[in-house]
Amino acid sequence: MNNSIESTDPPLSESVPTSANPIPDHARVAVLQQIGKPMAIQSYPLPRLQGSEVLVRIRCATICGSDLHSCFGRRPTPLPGVLGHEMLGQIADIGPAGAADYEGSSLQVGDRVTWSMVWSCGRCDFCRQGLRPKCLELKKFGHQTLDPANPFFGAMADYCWLPERTAIFRIPSEVPDRVVSPANCATATVAAIFRQIGECRGRSVVIQGAGMLGLVATAMAAAGGAGPVIAIDPDPRRSERTLQFGATQAINATSNVEEIQAQLQRLTDGRGADIVIELSGQPAAIELGIELLAIGGHYILAGSTFPSRAVQLSAEQIVRRWLRISGVYNYNPEDLRQALVFLAAHHQRFPFADLVSGSYPLEQVNEAFTHAENERPIRVAIVG
Amino acid sequence: MNNSIESTDPPLSESVPTSANPIPDHARVAVLQQIGKPMAIQSYPLPRLQGSEVLVRIRCATICGSDLHSCFGRRPTPLPGVLGHEMLGQIADIGPAGAADYEGSSLQVGDRVTWSMVWSCGRCDFCRQGLRPKCLELKKFGHQTLDPANPFFGAMADYCWLPERTAIFRIPSEVPDRVVSPANCATATVAAIFRQIGECRGRSVVIQGAGMLGLVATAMAAAGGAGPVIAIDPDPRRSERTLQFGATQAINATSNVEEIQAQLQRLTDGRGADIVIELSGQPAAIELGIELLAIGGHYILAGSTFPSRAVQLSAEQIVRRWLRISGVYNYNPEDLRQALVFLAAHHQRFPFADLVSGSYPLEQVNEAFTHAENERPIRVAIVG
Repeated sequence: MNNSIESTDPPLSESVPTSANPIPDHARVAVLQQIGKPMAIQSYPLPRLQGSEVLVRIRCATICGSDLHSCFGRRPTPLPGVLGHEMLGQIADIGPAGAADYEGSSLQVGDRVTWSMVWSCGRCDFCRQGLRPKCLELKKFGHQTLDPANPFFGAMADYCWLPERTAIFRIPSEVPDRVVSPANCATATVAAIFRQIGECRGRSVVIQGAGMLGLVATAMAAAGGAGPVIAIDPDPRRSERTLQFGATQAINATSNVEEIQAQLQRLTDGRGADIVIELSGQPAAIELGIELLAIGGHYILAGSTFPSRAVQLSAEQIVRRWLRISGVYNYNPEDLRQALVFLAAHHQRFPFADLVSGSYPLEQVNEAFTHAENERPIRVAIVG
Repeated sequence: MNNSIESTDPPLSESVPTSANPIPDHARVAVLQQIGKPMAIQSYPLPRLQGSEVLVRIRCATICGSDLHSCFGRRPTPLPGVLGHEMLGQIADIGPAGAADYEGSSLQVGDRVTWSMVWSCGRCDFCRQGLRPKCLELKKFGHQTLDPANPFFGAMADYCWLPERTAIFRIPSEVPDRVVSPANCATATVAAIFRQIGECRGRSVVIQGAGMLGLVATAMAAAGGAGPVIAIDPDPRRSERTLQFGATQAINATSNVEEIQAQLQRLTDGRGADIVIELSGQPAAIELGIELLAIGGHYILAGSTFPSRAVQLSAEQIVRRWLRISGVYNYNPEDLRQALVFLAAHHQRFPFADLVSGSYPLEQVNEAFTHAENERPIRVAIVG
């Protein structure tokens, strides 16, 4: 079942300008038509670009946990739709007005780029307040109902169409595709979390949940000089893996609460955690997490992106202990910039490349999703 | 029962240097020995001052809601003890080393002063982090077990002893005693709340609870250019009073939740409140308050200073709506400075002087507490 072709992967980070390759009239998208049914590979005409629109040939897409939730019916998803929002590619074509990246520098056919999976107008009240994920005209790649006139708005496809005002970033050439692919979801969201945290040097950080976001958060905390950095996950394999990503200590979340508390107190000289980052979305984890905070501590909630029971918190503890709680969901373009800076600086220190455990061509997208769902590796890639 | 002597009050703000009055050997404190029994007026020798200690002749003390909770057994309180922490007075004596106010300027006998009811060392980790209320050597005036060698550490007394490193502030002469007395509890705590909020100009603010802190919060929001400023309280008299303190709209908290939501949506063009300040400590109020927040809104919890049932919150809402929650309890010396600046600037715009509805001499302290408990005026004063 595991169709991993690790050893025979093409050199994904090698930059081959696609300008040399003619753009076909039609290209493929994988369409999820109904929950429980396989996605169908369908061919559609590629859009004629207007203004500053950009067409990207997708080189690599990774399957995010939320793609699995959507695909297997655990959260509402627009149908029919093209899934996938973690991706990168090479610019295949640019509209007649030319296009620039988020920094304002001209883009060229052949450039290797990623872009904000959150498309925001940049002009509405929310955008001007710095809340781009709440843009009044928000669209998210891999989250829209399929438009038969232009279905190229998700990663499970040969091409992706970027409307005007997409926040596009060039990718530093030294960072491999498989390392960059999660940048515009997991890595950028964690960068948004660290923007809320501010300086973390010398502060104790607990990370709840050791999936993709947890590993990135562990690495960002370690790279930022935090200490100790303590990762908690109920799966011992996952929590142990955090040690390769800079965790000082991995704690098994299935230990009883008193034991976890005692371990944390030992590691923090009895103070508790200055910062706790919650990435599991489990109510019980949140109720534990708030107990782990030091006086004056900051709790970042980012895992609760699906419905669950209410969490029960002591308001008196929040008040008397001067606690702070912040919700983070998606990110701003600046966070994606920061994510790329982080990956360029640290991708050799932390084994991000090893987190992609299988690579499939687009025609095997259903096998890729089944593998991701059944085996629960950190990431599975679709390569183009 | 109401022993108010409003019309015959002495001119409390007039500054009469007590240096002209000899300091007696002994002075009185009102001692709470047992919950449910009247406080006993007892005479003790005044302390001989060491170093930079200061002795203050109390001119005015006001009874805070938490004094009532302590006196009538609704929260644990050290016994025997001298209650009272909202107060001001004139310096009667200064230790041999001389003393300075928090700004570093020399204090003189006769100076009219208030001081932080939170005594903090200024040196421990918490103090250096800016969390003075969590000082490892914390003492709070009116909250300690009576020391028979020096019981002058509460406001229900003729004198108060200020240990070295008490954060002392001179009071602007134009602000009357009855206006200043709550400064070192209610006003400074609200200043700490607004320090967490930051800029409030042009932002919509909801204030839950229209007691002393709620009225100050309403006035600070209005003075800071917030708008609309919406006060919610279950007591119509109390919520109506907020209109004199700058509220744009007073809402009755006994209305049903849908009606409150609808009113708020009308007042904020459908956005909800940018800032909600919770001062009631009621779990149901907190569960309502979080629903009132706009996307990206900030909820300040400051009323939950007593045990109550857990609050039930949706973590998904906190995450998806980018909400922030901050607990505030007591304050830093800078907040008391800000409170005095605020009162000096705005005490004529907002009728703070009218909030003290009765003045009693120390020998009638029990009548004063009974009046405060039964009639629930905003404040009752003990004047010396």
